[in-house]
Amino acid sequence: MNDETKYLLPESEIPKAWYNVQADLPFELPPVLHPGTKRPVGPADLAPLFPMALIQQEVTRERWVEIPEPVREVYKLWRPTPLYRARRLEKALRTPARIFYKYEGVSPVGSHKPNTAVAQAFYNQQEGVKRLATETGAGQWGSSLAFAGQLFGIDVKIYMVRVSYDQKPYRRHMMETWGAKVVASPSPDTDTGRKRLAEEPACSGSLGLAISEAVEDTVTHPTPTKYALGSVLNHVLLHQTVIGLESKRQLDMAGVYPDVVVGCIGGGSNFAGFAYPFLADKLAGKAKGLRVVAIEPAAAPSLTRGVYAYDFGDTSMMTPLVRMYTLGHGFMPAPIHAGGLRYHGMASGICELYRNGIIEARAVQQLATFEAGVLFARAEGIVPAPEAAHAIRGAIDEAIRCREEGKAETIAFNLCGHGHFDMAAYERYFAGKLEDYELPQAEIDRAVAELPQV
Amino acid sequence: MNDETKYLLPESEIPKAWYNVQADLPFELPPVLHPGTKRPVGPADLAPLFPMALIQQEVTRERWVEIPEPVREVYKLWRPTPLYRARRLEKALRTPARIFYKYEGVSPVGSHKPNTAVAQAFYNQQEGVKRLATETGAGQWGSSLAFAGQLFGIDVKIYMVRVSYDQKPYRRHMMETWGAKVVASPSPDTDTGRKRLAEEPACSGSLGLAISEAVEDTVTHPTPTKYALGSVLNHVLLHQTVIGLESKRQLDMAGVYPDVVVGCIGGGSNFAGFAYPFLADKLAGKAKGLRVVAIEPAAAPSLTRGVYAYDFGDTSMMTPLVRMYTLGHGFMPAPIHAGGLRYHGMASGICELYRNGIIEARAVQQLATFEAGVLFARAEGIVPAPEAAHAIRGAIDEAIRCREEGKAETIAFNLCGHGHFDMAAYERYFAGKLEDYELPQAEIDRAVAELPQV
Repeated sequence: MNDETKYLLPESEIPKAWYNVQADLPFELPPVLHPGTKRPVGPADLAPLFPMALIQQEVTRERWVEIPEPVREVYKLWRPTPLYRARRLEKALRTPARIFYKYEGVSPVGSHKPNTAVAQAFYNQQEGVKRLATETGAGQWGSSLAFAGQLFGIDVKIYMVRVSYDQKPYRRHMMETWGAKVVASPSPDTDTGRKRLAEEPACSGSLGLAISEAVEDTVTHPTPTKYALGSVLNHVLLHQTVIGLESKRQLDMAGVYPDVVVGCIGGGSNFAGFAYPFLADKLAGKAKGLRVVAIEPAAAPSLTRGVYAYDFGDTSMMTPLVRMYTLGHGFMPAPIHAGGLRYHGMASGICELYRNGIIEARAVQQLATFEAGVLFARAEGIVPAPEAAHAIRGAIDEAIRCREEGKAETIAFNLCGHGHFDMAAYERYFAGKLEDYELPQAEIDRAVAELPQV
Repeated sequence: MNDETKYLLPESEIPKAWYNVQADLPFELPPVLHPGTKRPVGPADLAPLFPMALIQQEVTRERWVEIPEPVREVYKLWRPTPLYRARRLEKALRTPARIFYKYEGVSPVGSHKPNTAVAQAFYNQQEGVKRLATETGAGQWGSSLAFAGQLFGIDVKIYMVRVSYDQKPYRRHMMETWGAKVVASPSPDTDTGRKRLAEEPACSGSLGLAISEAVEDTVTHPTPTKYALGSVLNHVLLHQTVIGLESKRQLDMAGVYPDVVVGCIGGGSNFAGFAYPFLADKLAGKAKGLRVVAIEPAAAPSLTRGVYAYDFGDTSMMTPLVRMYTLGHGFMPAPIHAGGLRYHGMASGICELYRNGIIEARAVQQLATFEAGVLFARAEGIVPAPEAAHAIRGAIDEAIRCREEGKAETIAFNLCGHGHFDMAAYERYFAGKLEDYELPQAEIDRAVAELPQV
């Protein structure tokens, strides 16, 4: 073993291709259905929203998809990201386990999201797109597309959920610093928004409504516009695999291969980005003992408590239908602070891997994640985002199991972002104002009762 | 030339010694005087406040001071920091100049401050200190000492200026996440604070008052306590030289030596940390053409408009007297957003270098620094702290001069921190609410009239 604190790669080792798990899955992904016809969607259905290169990436079976050189050039602003050995955390836990973490918070945005935002901006630019529309909740995704659009000369319009627009202004100012136009949703800029405002002028908005506004903007704006999504879709997960590909090289430098790989999970992109390149080994029969563990919030437990069914990706029932574990598109999660994990559904590939017993999932409570986040910050220095604290909780629980079983396993997790814009959540935690949330089964039953008939 | 975007060093190349400019100065530093006796202070005068190792570092003439291995171990959490070639900024400016920047914002705290906080915590721990007291304004220094104290098992008490405590809560929550006790100053915890609160219950505090409280706490607290300072003193500047030492190695990897070195300047620690290792070459006659440029805010222009005299380091007249360029200890700077640069005086060594014509200084206006910061964020991705935007402004002005003169010079500057906790300032800039500030000469004259008689 090579005893570094962090393992760095030179820029020349930024991956030259993304890894596409669809090449190696031992099953077919269920087709995505048109919400009207209930027939599988084709490229023509998606063309008004996405450039053709991304539509092709959505369905390709090629194992490796080349990363264009201009994308790699932008990646160099922060990639390869470091992989750390968490020695101080191991010591604090008195565990014989070795804990490693990949740190994606070094990007200018502070998370893994620009890995796909940069790629999406590039492909749009290549097809002559001058303007992109998207939605954002807490602002990680909006910031990433603002940053990427700026670098590729594309105007970006962001519909930001009103409650975040008002309560989390710093992310908004960051998007504006990168030149994006940000408007609170519901907004006066779309029919959907105007209608909603007329019904309820003080409406605080929702991600589903913001998606509807961004999609309406995309198909109606006088400047030809495309739409961009920050998670869930296959091409988004594909772009994130740079995380796991680099991590494998770095763990190799450290002279280890993981026994357990852990990530937090909302729509699925940071988890898949980190885990899929390891899963490739397992799917090829080369890492049979490898465990891959997804950690989701108990307040939005789509994998562990959702039903497996066709459902809409958004609450407004505008998107195609995806077969997945879902809490129902009408599910309203409790307002926990890990905003990036409050999604009713899950990327299709992840659902199939879970259904086939290839990956595991666990739900954790909010207080346990903040406890883990504070322990991590005090041991390792980095203050994690509440989303990333879910992965930390998962890794700590595995390390405690190793202590109890006396096993020196190797645990690797993805620290997908820092918490610099989430300090108000830490304040509430220290003030004793955060609560756990036991999701009543009746709430799931109610939302699931509204699933579309297919 | 080696064409990387960023130049990385392995952990093994974290410097093993700090560079002490006192070994190479062609003049003596004026003695620091006791405020009562007006005689030079000795180690015994400082012993109640600082551990002996730091008192010795304050006056040593040794060229190299060994960095203890436990300090290097903590440095590995973020050091060596990257050095970037700002190619997109060069392109945006259409300059033939090559621009490089060292990025200190990758530390867990987000700036260069932990370089000295970690060293100070280590030396205190070595001498058995269990508790440290300090003051903080906007919170960069307090965060750094909280982080460092946590790693070395030292309790940290921070007196945070009331106005920042109320208006900038996120930095406070960060300090608490790292386990520090933070109190608004004036506080009920000291005689100084209680007296001030009795006179004016709504007092918004000042850095001078917070220093007084921290010093009183240090000498009166039942748990033996030492005091820690984040800038100005020789040992603080010494610890920061890891920045410049790494930068020289990295510029060497890039195959260049700078023609101009630029840093922003408040108390002087990030500037000295970056510039002194280059100045060593100039002082040794090896880099005769090298220009070293300090950029200060026009609202607190101690080098360019201050007087050269003995003055107190704090507004409460409790510290020893230092010979320096000063605007007067009673000077109240306009509330510009670069809080870290609003200091009435300057580190003694920097003043002597300026007085002897070895370094240059320029004052810049606030709007010009935000304009530079936004241009930088849009070109390079990183949103800079308002302090760091002063260095960017200086580097951009040099690059524009190179364009006008048709010179392909190499410019290197220190990007001392990110702006994640300063987005409210960017909002005010975009909203047109920020102003330049022409400091009236009468204000300086008034403050300078109160200089102590020596």
